Amino acid sequence: MATVIRNPLLVPSTSHHNNLNHKNSTVLLTLRFPQTSLRHSSHRFKSRFTVSCSQSEPSSRRRPPYIPNRIPDPSYVRIFDTTLRDGEQSPGASMTSKEKLDVARQLSKLGVDIIEAGFPAASKDDFEAVKTIAQEVGNAVDDHGYVPVICGLSRCNENDIRTAWEAVKYAKRPRIHTFIATSAIHMEYKLRMSKEKVVEIARNMVKFARSLGCEDVEFSPEDAGRSDREFLYEILGEVIKAGATTLNIPDTVGINLPSEFGRLIADIKANTPGIENVIISTHCQNDLGLSTANTIEGARAGARQLEVTINGIGERAGNASLEEVVMALRCGAHVTGNLYTGINPKHIFLTSKMVEEYTGLQLQPHKALVGANAFAHESGIHQDGMLKHKDTYEIISPEDIGIERTNEAGIVLGKLSGRHALRKRLEELGYELNDDQVQSLFWRFKAVAEQKKRVTDADLRALVSDEVFQAEPVWKLGDIQVTCGTLGLSTATVKLLSNDGRAHVACSVGTGPVDSAYKAIDLIVKEPVTLLEYSMNAVTEGIDAIATTRVVIRAESETSTSTTHVLTGETVLRTFSGTGAGMDVVVSSVKAYIAALNKMLGFKETSPSAEKIPISSLEI
Amino acid sequence: MATVIRNPLLVPSTSHHNNLNHKNSTVLLTLRFPQTSLRHSSHRFKSRFTVSCSQSEPSSRRRPPYIPNRIPDPSYVRIFDTTLRDGEQSPGASMTSKEKLDVARQLSKLGVDIIEAGFPAASKDDFEAVKTIAQEVGNAVDDHGYVPVICGLSRCNENDIRTAWEAVKYAKRPRIHTFIATSAIHMEYKLRMSKEKVVEIARNMVKFARSLGCEDVEFSPEDAGRSDREFLYEILGEVIKAGATTLNIPDTVGINLPSEFGRLIADIKANTPGIENVIISTHCQNDLGLSTANTIEGARAGARQLEVTINGIGERAGNASLEEVVMALRCGAHVTGNLYTGINPKHIFLTSKMVEEYTGLQLQPHKALVGANAFAHESGIHQDGMLKHKDTYEIISPEDIGIERTNEAGIVLGKLSGRHALRKRLEELGYELNDDQVQSLFWRFKAVAEQKKRVTDADLRALVSDEVFQAEPVWKLGDIQVTCGTLGLSTATVKLLSNDGRAHVACSVGTGPVDSAYKAIDLIVKEPVTLLEYSMNAVTEGIDAIATTRVVIRAESETSTSTTHVLTGETVLRTFSGTGAGMDVVVSSVKAYIAALNKMLGFKETSPSAEKIPISSLEI
Repeated sequence: MATVIRNPLLVPSTSHHNNLNHKNSTVLLTLRFPQTSLRHSSHRFKSRFTVSCSQSEPSSRRRPPYIPNRIPDPSYVRIFDTTLRDGEQSPGASMTSKEKLDVARQLSKLGVDIIEAGFPAASKDDFEAVKTIAQEVGNAVDDHGYVPVICGLSRCNENDIRTAWEAVKYAKRPRIHTFIATSAIHMEYKLRMSKEKVVEIARNMVKFARSLGCEDVEFSPEDAGRSDREFLYEILGEVIKAGATTLNIPDTVGINLPSEFGRLIADIKANTPGIENVIISTHCQNDLGLSTANTIEGARAGARQLEVTINGIGERAGNASLEEVVMALRCGAHVTGNLYTGINPKHIFLTSKMVEEYTGLQLQPHKALVGANAFAHESGIHQDGMLKHKDTYEIISPEDIGIERTNEAGIVLGKLSGRHALRKRLEELGYELNDDQVQSLFWRFKAVAEQKKRVTDADLRALVSDEVFQAEPVWKLGDIQVTCGTLGLSTATVKLLSNDGRAHVACSVGTGPVDSAYKAIDLIVKEPVTLLEYSMNAVTEGIDAIATTRVVIRAESETSTSTTHVLTGETVLRTFSGTGAGMDVVVSSVKAYIAALNKMLGFKETSPSAEKIPISSLEI
Repeated sequence: MATVIRNPLLVPSTSHHNNLNHKNSTVLLTLRFPQTSLRHSSHRFKSRFTVSCSQSEPSSRRRPPYIPNRIPDPSYVRIFDTTLRDGEQSPGASMTSKEKLDVARQLSKLGVDIIEAGFPAASKDDFEAVKTIAQEVGNAVDDHGYVPVICGLSRCNENDIRTAWEAVKYAKRPRIHTFIATSAIHMEYKLRMSKEKVVEIARNMVKFARSLGCEDVEFSPEDAGRSDREFLYEILGEVIKAGATTLNIPDTVGINLPSEFGRLIADIKANTPGIENVIISTHCQNDLGLSTANTIEGARAGARQLEVTINGIGERAGNASLEEVVMALRCGAHVTGNLYTGINPKHIFLTSKMVEEYTGLQLQPHKALVGANAFAHESGIHQDGMLKHKDTYEIISPEDIGIERTNEAGIVLGKLSGRHALRKRLEELGYELNDDQVQSLFWRFKAVAEQKKRVTDADLRALVSDEVFQAEPVWKLGDIQVTCGTLGLSTATVKLLSNDGRAHVACSVGTGPVDSAYKAIDLIVKEPVTLLEYSMNAVTEGIDAIATTRVVIRAESETSTSTTHVLTGETVLRTFSGTGAGMDVVVSSVKAYIAALNKMLGFKETSPSAEKIPISSLEI
């Protein structure tokens, strides 16, 4: 991948287009120093260290064929992505079935080995989402024979397992993942079961999963990080005998230090009877900020499946992040004994953006690899200084993870750009849109270009997400008119169009323009909701920027939009997010609110008879 | 700290007030399980693992007396905070001198051993900020004799070192920190110097620092993570002989894996002549998400000073975060051989909030420990379920790091609350305000309470930051009036008051209400700036929430607001952030813009003759 540059001071890495949501204040340039290049050009020093992670992977390293309980190449590490299950469990991160399908397709492009698509027993909607992913993404075999395993989570009871199987069985490579807690504290206070009972259930449920015809069964001893070692060896040995093919070792509460977690994996590998016939997996929570390191240490100790999420999202402090784990394995190949994955890092950035957008979990600027500042430096005044700067401070080239460079020569669309140029740029950005979508985007694009000289990639991304990635509309914004300021009462008049095309108009006063507009909408829509979060970001630089607003709402009735929490068995109320983009912050705020309401109303319609599995069904 | 609870299912940890910016959807409750309690109550299982990190520290563990090159207790680890130097280097994170002083005071409350207050040679303003911190925070000795060391960074040249000394010498415990790059790639392409020259400069400059009367000198071989081992032993041995008291080992580009970085520290400890007479320090960048783990591994390998920043901020992906490192050391005491720090974690949360506010680097919800979701779970419907939930999934009690619980019984102020109640609550939240400040806050508070039933702690925080934590005003908002929507041209009329009390009025059209208002302001203020970032967050739940807007601007002239980048020697343009809070998003946006302009104008006034040190002065 990296070409050898003889004189890095003179030859900047050539770059193509402007694709990153970066400000002009940050100029992205880099020079890559493959180790060989440095060795040749530097006579004075021996280099016994890694200088850059941008070295090319040996071409011989192909993803080995998929066999549930065995990997033909001992250096290959499977990546198990649980963005759609553990990630979606984050407060406010609910995704629609369509959004989940989009993410699953993107994960498949990225090349993840296993997609945990959800917890099918949680609700009818969750079930349908997993099933759709199994049918579509789980059957899209590529030219090299790759197709992701589609996995469904289930607690250790027949109902959950049967439901999971009914959802994943449509995939070419279906997997059931079942779990039960094994730590003293969990067994005593959560399960209220004896060790013997826990072992019996685990064994029986793995057998049950196999009996359904599922040949790929993963078992997790929940809270393994705080479980008694001897008991772990025992229960894991039993589930191996019962037919488990992957054993996942979760540090459920994120309490382990890297050396400690590595030791845990090593101990399990050394002491569990039959362990040589299965794959060991890690699942590290991030409560102390150590999840990536723990995962890497797990791999060094023998784990060959790593459970991760895009952007590291998940409950509380989240999980190990896919991008960090994959790139750390790459950069640390000399430390890990050349472990490698099947991930194509070029798709990391777009996947990260998509998950950020859909879940609304916005990344901090200093998020490693995918944060806005990850490859940014304060720009200097002298070009020469900058060049010197990049080669010495950048270990990964942004292009390696799909971030194109901000560059004066990059394509920036303007008001004279035609439909063809727009479609081409969107394709380059990774969006696959149909004609209708391009058509409707084109008019929005023209409207923006009328008011802005340069329509950047960030503008385009905001428009796509506003125009294309929206729930089926129940309500559409007709018009809005607002008066506000410090001199009088804020007043908004809103016209909404319902599905049948009828116009509804209402006006309201409020504490500000957004408050008054939302109150006017409430008068029309008549759905009691609570606004939980409201945030806005100008995605492009300049005072005439496009601002994207995001809101999270919760329906104030528990019947139709609730779901079952996988770990606790509790019923929780779903929350819905909506985004809106535009150059007028009030208009974008109103669009975001309507989008969230539409998502909520759409969810209600598709799941009239959401199944609830009471916690008591845990005891089989 | 933690009391032993016999039946955790029945006795929730009692909580006091609502202080966290959490939504009602997330209910915070916990049960602490000191290991001893579990051991007694659990007869069936042996527990050989840590269940919770909330155990009290043995009272015998007092911070040992400060001696620059030696720590009397081999288990004590110094915390070196570089939020004000490395953290402030993040794009857009510039702080005013007053803000820096506030942060330094807070770091002292937290108990950090060393505060790196800045890079005094960067500009006159940076120099003054470090000097003020040295004079004020560096002399505030507490009852136990604790006072933080105040440290100034300098490149390896006499000018930088002298300037640093002039700034820090007022502190009771001053330190100079000087550095030079030691990796082949940096020496060859950045410094263009031979190894021998680098060693000579390092030795001479450490001697020079000592010759000024500074008895506490830290030396860093920049890019140590990619430096040749033998060369490191050599140069470190030389600077020890020259009088260095702390040797800091930076993984400048964040490329090391934990095991690798631990090995680096162990190797240096084993092979550097004279190392037993100095303190070894870590400084880990976060480019692969491994900075916390690398820092911990460094401590395990013998480092006794750890360089960190609040919230993990810093250039690119930032640094190891203080809160993660300190709490991981606490939770992992059984793995690290009982290492401990002098940090009082109770102040972590407020410090984190202050730094987030001042730098504008907003944390992602899943940031470990201090993110909005770090202690949040989707709330269940049944109280019983929640109780069971917390005890099994929470390892640190939020109160341990200063997060008070959201609790129905918490104090929520309303419109009948008086001045006394307001002051009391502000004090409980950690704000020390004078009478005038409380007075002016009180009127804002009353105005909010008129429109909102419950004024929460989050509301109060937003008001304090809007009313008290602002730069000296050059321009003040008089009035504003806006009309916008989809039906016509957005128009804003703005009245600003200048320092002399005169009113200036202008109106403008724009692409939205904020755009038109900002354009009207530009017509009055007449300072060419670029708007780099614009974001808004509703800090409280509900449609009538208080929204905080934040903008970052950059002056379009390089003369008066530029500064020298410490690592590259480049001149960079400063950027300025401003925040505004209010229930009207347009009004809060306007306030934020005016605040940023005031900050920029104030900076211009205080540094008319900002000294510039050209890069050529690097070669002494």
